[in-house]
Amino acid sequence: PSSETTELAAIIEFVHTATLLHDDVIDKSEQRRGNATANAIWDNQAPVLVGDFLYSRAFQLLTQRGNIAIMQTLSSATNLIAEGEIMQLANKNTLIDEATYFDIIFRKTAALFASAAQSTALLHHVPDAQQQACYQFGNHVGLAFQLVDDLLDYVGQQDELGKNQGDDIAEGKVTLPLLYAHHSANKEEQQLIQEAIASPSPAHIQPILTLVQCSQAKARTEEKIKYHNRQALAALSQLPNNPYRQ
Amino acid sequence: PSSETTELAAIIEFVHTATLLHDDVIDKSEQRRGNATANAIWDNQAPVLVGDFLYSRAFQLLTQRGNIAIMQTLSSATNLIAEGEIMQLANKNTLIDEATYFDIIFRKTAALFASAAQSTALLHHVPDAQQQACYQFGNHVGLAFQLVDDLLDYVGQQDELGKNQGDDIAEGKVTLPLLYAHHSANKEEQQLIQEAIASPSPAHIQPILTLVQCSQAKARTEEKIKYHNRQALAALSQLPNNPYRQ
Repeated sequence: PSSETTELAAIIEFVHTATLLHDDVIDKSEQRRGNATANAIWDNQAPVLVGDFLYSRAFQLLTQRGNIAIMQTLSSATNLIAEGEIMQLANKNTLIDEATYFDIIFRKTAALFASAAQSTALLHHVPDAQQQACYQFGNHVGLAFQLVDDLLDYVGQQDELGKNQGDDIAEGKVTLPLLYAHHSANKEEQQLIQEAIASPSPAHIQPILTLVQCSQAKARTEEKIKYHNRQALAALSQLPNNPYRQ
Repeated sequence: PSSETTELAAIIEFVHTATLLHDDVIDKSEQRRGNATANAIWDNQAPVLVGDFLYSRAFQLLTQRGNIAIMQTLSSATNLIAEGEIMQLANKNTLIDEATYFDIIFRKTAALFASAAQSTALLHHVPDAQQQACYQFGNHVGLAFQLVDDLLDYVGQQDELGKNQGDDIAEGKVTLPLLYAHHSANKEEQQLIQEAIASPSPAHIQPILTLVQCSQAKARTEEKIKYHNRQALAALSQLPNNPYRQ
């Protein structure tokens, strides 16, 4: 890749790392990728400030290249991420609906995948339709990624996860597998789920995990993942057929 | 002012508010401007995220106008603020020297005053020398502002401060008045100051306040404030003489 492409990738990784540093502070997460989080080691101050440093350095570097369209898509994505995280925080301990769930994961996760993919297209001045196809490719890969991440929180193996199974329910965070389990649950089970969401305690985790694992939630969430994978491939098919696309 | 000027002012205020929200999280501050801080009311999560929202919305708005020079100076200022806050955190409980103190306050405070003043000049396409004069005006006003703020922490009246006297020493944060008091202190007093910096406790606050108040620190800090006020006025004198300059 050209030095401009490499630099753009580094800038996007700065933004991404900043979001992770702040996200772990917000969620009080102890582990990420199988390692202790920055906030677990150094408390909240340094991760908040280093996140701010990375965000602002990313935009500072972008202004040196001066491609306005790339700055627009990446500053919009960064703003959407903050919106998504705020929506997630505001909806903590709430049984959101599926549309709200997708609104949140588009903002907090897929928007950066989409803008990252679009920004390489913008860097290389490809036609508008291809640039939009890159955006849609990133968007659907991002949604699929977040769906996988949320599903693994219920069905993943500890050693693959790099974090604890049941973290989402422990935080009162409602994701699609739990929504689907709630749809097909009987009255008693629904009450248990609502109670666990409203005031999560360690005692809730295993019963809720079991409930989700024994429901159709896994299969239904996998359907959604496959759908977004297909959409991502459909977007890719609009790009020129070459080794990179393959 | 034109709508562009008003919008730029709003954008700068977004950046400024974001820094204050994060700063209060970092310092665990309970009060600002005589009111409870956001973190005191809503804990750390919302202020971190709303700060991120404001930072990124500021850059998103700037990209809509497309003035690269303004984006450069404001993204650089935002990055310097993060650097300054990190330097301050890294130097907590340390007797820094005067040069380091000024390095920190340039970054954490004066850089945004400087870039804010410069960015209006850039918006109106004034000659380069005047644009640099605006930057220097903001820089010196910013340094003077921070020196006043740091002095008031030792000599301000509670009802004027909107925060508690002695907050800096309670946090182990070394500012210029304490540095100056340390310079002129006898051996025993120096030991007390060093102990208070290294491991601050509520019992240290009053003795240190008294020590600073009875030293030449106030007069010497006021000299520095006057110096930067004069420098600010000298920078202003390079601008056209009109009612705005007056």
